[in-house]
Amino acid sequence: MHILIIGAAGMVGRKLTTRLLREGAVGGAAIEKLTLVDVVSPEKPETTVAIDSFAVDLSTPGVAETLVEGRPDLIYHLAAIVSAEAELDFDKGYRINLDGTRYLFDAIRLAHQADGYKPRVVFTSSIAVVGAPLPLSIPDDFHLTPLTSYGTQKAMSELLLADYSRRGFFDGIGIRLPTVCIRPGKPNKAASGFFSNILREPLIGEEAILPVPESTRHWHTSPRSAVGYLVHAADLDLAQLGSQRSLSMPGVSATVGEQIEALRRIAGDKAVSLIRREPNEMIMKMVAGWAPGFEAKRAIELGFTAENNFDEIIQVHIEDELGGGLP
Amino acid sequence: MHILIIGAAGMVGRKLTTRLLREGAVGGAAIEKLTLVDVVSPEKPETTVAIDSFAVDLSTPGVAETLVEGRPDLIYHLAAIVSAEAELDFDKGYRINLDGTRYLFDAIRLAHQADGYKPRVVFTSSIAVVGAPLPLSIPDDFHLTPLTSYGTQKAMSELLLADYSRRGFFDGIGIRLPTVCIRPGKPNKAASGFFSNILREPLIGEEAILPVPESTRHWHTSPRSAVGYLVHAADLDLAQLGSQRSLSMPGVSATVGEQIEALRRIAGDKAVSLIRREPNEMIMKMVAGWAPGFEAKRAIELGFTAENNFDEIIQVHIEDELGGGLP
Repeated sequence: MHILIIGAAGMVGRKLTTRLLREGAVGGAAIEKLTLVDVVSPEKPETTVAIDSFAVDLSTPGVAETLVEGRPDLIYHLAAIVSAEAELDFDKGYRINLDGTRYLFDAIRLAHQADGYKPRVVFTSSIAVVGAPLPLSIPDDFHLTPLTSYGTQKAMSELLLADYSRRGFFDGIGIRLPTVCIRPGKPNKAASGFFSNILREPLIGEEAILPVPESTRHWHTSPRSAVGYLVHAADLDLAQLGSQRSLSMPGVSATVGEQIEALRRIAGDKAVSLIRREPNEMIMKMVAGWAPGFEAKRAIELGFTAENNFDEIIQVHIEDELGGGLP
Repeated sequence: MHILIIGAAGMVGRKLTTRLLREGAVGGAAIEKLTLVDVVSPEKPETTVAIDSFAVDLSTPGVAETLVEGRPDLIYHLAAIVSAEAELDFDKGYRINLDGTRYLFDAIRLAHQADGYKPRVVFTSSIAVVGAPLPLSIPDDFHLTPLTSYGTQKAMSELLLADYSRRGFFDGIGIRLPTVCIRPGKPNKAASGFFSNILREPLIGEEAILPVPESTRHWHTSPRSAVGYLVHAADLDLAQLGSQRSLSMPGVSATVGEQIEALRRIAGDKAVSLIRREPNEMIMKMVAGWAPGFEAKRAIELGFTAENNFDEIIQVHIEDELGGGLP
């Protein structure tokens, strides 16, 4: 089996690569080759599996054709401009998030029409395809109401994925990722970064800034579960999806206050005391439009899983990023 | 006021032109100029209003820019490849229905960024943005579930319209047209054509073919009401729409049997006897995925109106197409 990962240098892409190599197979078929691409050349992992790794810009016409030339059996399309950047740079957001996706889908379509090629395509969509007003637990058949250009681009890509799958050009599934928490690494400028920062930093004795009230409720999953969805999506009978090809994933709905109480149980009052309140009107306004939680009934029925609470999410971070214990 | 109609040579475009010229003004502002474009040059109406009429292909890069050069205050975007053709010719459907729309929206965006230009944009979407399984009366917040490439292209265009409006590039509204019935003219090959044929032809003593059972329920509006939506949309405070910029319109939900009984009341048994049953499996299968009806609560609250039953729809046809009486 030959797997192509577009967006392999990102956090989820790197963890997915590691996980796939550890498992060695997808649905009983041994992984023989991995093609890893991103806007920067993804790091080559240590493995006996054949690895092709290089930098590409999917939004450049012609690039997608070269990616499907090797006829990968399974394609992960994780590449995207994040929400804040897509909002700031209108052209770039549409070029990467919409045109790039369409170039990929069309390259597969043309290959399908040429020789019957029909790969599995796993596309990472986002909970940003919906926007306020939202119920506390959003049902699977909630209408698409994006309130950002990023969410619009993901919703449009979901529609393309469904149409190309219906036409039989490929077998596609869209995974609406919850906010991934705790993101490893350093604090970044993403508006959603604080959800991770207020746990990750105090766990290693560093200060973190909380820009919203503790009552703010949002929808989370661990990096491990995010990768778990993608692996599960590779080996699922997609006929079960019918015409609705994009799924809200299971996750943990929690308030910031509940996140903090989980941190207190695991790392104590001293860790919690490192969280500094700095209310930020702009971030509060953005977050107010975000999803508090999803029912994710279809995904759960199809065997997708996530953590049950924030204690488990913090535990995953300690195991996967901190070597299993607090410093 | 300068109005641009893209798709002005089509049935709805021609009737809209006539209606606008008859009214002479939109929201109190006199119509000073009409620019009428389509893939064939639209007929120039007899009027004292300045008319510019020419053939363009909106899907050719650069064309949209020339259309917004004259900075029309109000733009009707009615141009589209119909459902059956978009299904048969995948490339053409996406090129005209998606790329053409995006070229137009982007040309307006660039003009907005250049000089603050911000027209009203009225876009004709379609009930094909939803597909089975469907409730008998589809609520306004029903999720987008197109089952055709045409419906996918319209749903994607609705998302673009909402994002470009949210960004303030233009003030957009999407009108989800019901199936227009009775379409004037000759029977055509559209799968939905029989809904009109079985009324229009018997009304003038001609035979018509019915390919589906009488229990088939669908969602209709007259050409006069379809044009009425478009005129009403030109002069509505769109701030009322919030972020949901596309609206299902009011219409008449009726079975084919109810259509036939209305025909019998108006034109008698002899007209009804001209309907010949010729069951067509392919058409039956297509129609099974179509919408039986919409609640259209928001549109009704905003003042959009339609007929109340099929007797009224037939009466409109007699008045507007048959000079007010049966032959």
